[in-house]
Amino acid sequence: MTHNFLPKIPYGTSDLLPREASEKRNIEASLAKLFRSWGYEELVSPTFEFLETFTAGSSNDMSQYSFKFFDKDNRVLVLRPDMTTPIARIVSTRLKDSKFPMRFFYLSNVFRHEQAQTGRKCEFYQAGIELLGSDDHSSDAEVVALAAESLLNLKLTNFQIGLGQIEFIKGVMLESGLPKIISAKIEQLLVNRDIVGIEQTLDNVGFHHGLFKLLKEILELHGKESVLEKAYNLVQNDLSRKALYNLAGIHTLLKAYKLEEYINFDLSIIRDFDYYTGMTMEAYTPGLGFPVLGGGRYNNLTQSFGFNCPATGFALGIERVILALFRQGLTPLTQKKDVYIAWKKGKLPDAILAAKEYRKSNLTVEVALAEQTKEEAFEISKNFKEFIYLE
Amino acid sequence: MTHNFLPKIPYGTSDLLPREASEKRNIEASLAKLFRSWGYEELVSPTFEFLETFTAGSSNDMSQYSFKFFDKDNRVLVLRPDMTTPIARIVSTRLKDSKFPMRFFYLSNVFRHEQAQTGRKCEFYQAGIELLGSDDHSSDAEVVALAAESLLNLKLTNFQIGLGQIEFIKGVMLESGLPKIISAKIEQLLVNRDIVGIEQTLDNVGFHHGLFKLLKEILELHGKESVLEKAYNLVQNDLSRKALYNLAGIHTLLKAYKLEEYINFDLSIIRDFDYYTGMTMEAYTPGLGFPVLGGGRYNNLTQSFGFNCPATGFALGIERVILALFRQGLTPLTQKKDVYIAWKKGKLPDAILAAKEYRKSNLTVEVALAEQTKEEAFEISKNFKEFIYLE
Repeated sequence: MTHNFLPKIPYGTSDLLPREASEKRNIEASLAKLFRSWGYEELVSPTFEFLETFTAGSSNDMSQYSFKFFDKDNRVLVLRPDMTTPIARIVSTRLKDSKFPMRFFYLSNVFRHEQAQTGRKCEFYQAGIELLGSDDHSSDAEVVALAAESLLNLKLTNFQIGLGQIEFIKGVMLESGLPKIISAKIEQLLVNRDIVGIEQTLDNVGFHHGLFKLLKEILELHGKESVLEKAYNLVQNDLSRKALYNLAGIHTLLKAYKLEEYINFDLSIIRDFDYYTGMTMEAYTPGLGFPVLGGGRYNNLTQSFGFNCPATGFALGIERVILALFRQGLTPLTQKKDVYIAWKKGKLPDAILAAKEYRKSNLTVEVALAEQTKEEAFEISKNFKEFIYLE
Repeated sequence: MTHNFLPKIPYGTSDLLPREASEKRNIEASLAKLFRSWGYEELVSPTFEFLETFTAGSSNDMSQYSFKFFDKDNRVLVLRPDMTTPIARIVSTRLKDSKFPMRFFYLSNVFRHEQAQTGRKCEFYQAGIELLGSDDHSSDAEVVALAAESLLNLKLTNFQIGLGQIEFIKGVMLESGLPKIISAKIEQLLVNRDIVGIEQTLDNVGFHHGLFKLLKEILELHGKESVLEKAYNLVQNDLSRKALYNLAGIHTLLKAYKLEEYINFDLSIIRDFDYYTGMTMEAYTPGLGFPVLGGGRYNNLTQSFGFNCPATGFALGIERVILALFRQGLTPLTQKKDVYIAWKKGKLPDAILAAKEYRKSNLTVEVALAEQTKEEAFEISKNFKEFIYLE
């Protein structure tokens, strides 16, 4: 069995060495504590589930990006591409007779066949919350507030959370009177912010002028509270205006949370027309070209599992937070271990006893595994704050 | 998309609801803290790796029990069946130029196609340590001591760790002069403690009498320190006797650790002839018919990755610990959340502010998402220690 096999790891996966593993563990511990203090409880789901769970639960079919394999009965299994679907499944089956609203969090890896990009690989780590059973804007506000508190908690203080609401553009599209098939195409182009494509498509069907100008204005409209008033004046339909009232209500509560400085509005935050049904959000921080956190309201997901339950939540990318902290120079310095205990022949039992005492005071202690001279031990002890030599 | 699809989860997987998820998180946090205090650092590896990594790294071919699938280039990927192999891979490649000994821990799920049994499923959770770069009995003693401290740390105080050493029986088999092919068969029967099978096999080749009596005695020999002396008198060969000296050395150090009350000797703890090369251990606790923890010395594993490095370690089954604590009546009581804040129309901003203050004192606080009458709120507040109604 001794051959020089030089093993690689699969595309889009990574080993986390001690420094990064420790950053990840500290982030997860901080967030678990924060989420719990807001009344959220953890759920853990299987790493792989039946394909049907994800195709039923998500009309945008995230399963096309999934890693698939077969069980012994040739049923298709997938490595979970998200955690929101499994939580919706658990709530809709095992917990559906509970008292709602219910608050859950997860800290979990998820898997997607994607072009691996900086800050997101084929296996990546998420922290997220789901608040189920309330359709009130107070629950959206709570989720946005907890998103902001999460980033503050991780010392990533330089960020902005953009809020949008899917019905605003839905209202605009309905108001436009465009044929459904064209609407759907425009919506897809809006998700990709493809202004040129929108202009061409509208041009082709003779709807160019007013609607294109309006959509372009909407795509460019972002900023503080005044955005809501400007947007109000751009539309006549009830659906769009109700969306704006809802966002105004959320904003009022975010003032009560004293978090309004971190909030702006961007009505072009759509994320996914099929999945989201209300407020949408994305958080950005300098040095990252992609959101560090995203989420929104998804009232239809549990229906796929035969249960009717409004819901809202967000997911945060743990590697993205680590990358943002690094790029902003906020990565904590590597801590030296506390104590190194070396020993001369026969003194290992004393070293073991001494280590036991130090550990009682919450110190990190390494004991040498073989006798060392003072000089050998001193060399190694440079990586420690304190050095003891027993002779 | 609205259909009554009632989703199940795959065989051998499980959802952890809040109580169990929280027990798991608390166990992992305690162990991470303990492992760190002994100088161990965390490694995280991909959930799936190339099949070759596991077939190269383990001659007993754990890959036969693995979940396999294909990447886009039709290479076989497997969900990791253990964490020792990935850590050996990381050390042998990215860390091979580091200063040894190195100490690592992991808290991770692993996957095996097995008959799901109580306390172990197809996806299960392990905590483990690996101490690499020392072949001294002091490192085996450290690993056994940390195993015992882990169980004590988790409040599982009623346990015994059995120690064996693979060379003891290897020496007996060599001394016996049995043909190699028969030796291999006997070794397999020894792993399964199949006394009847051993008797039949030896009978067939005419080696029945003395060797069978000896192997039977060895299988029955377990207890405190005196076992080592008894065993010494059963054998003449150097390999077996060196194994006993090594165990005696480990035992002396475990006295220094003040953990000898948790230790016994059982020379029939073999676990796996191909993988282990020295000391082996298994920990048992009442109410579980299988070990809660197992491990030992494996000096050949990193050679498969072109690097020569002695190593020793253990892995603990997290669900097994949870089950043992439950069966021994040691499961912590579910904590009520601390504060529930309900409000009358218009008072939500005050409730948000009040919650913020309470959370500063590390309390768990839920805020109602809609206005409630005092009576409605009182009903819900029964699940909380404290109840505030803002009107």
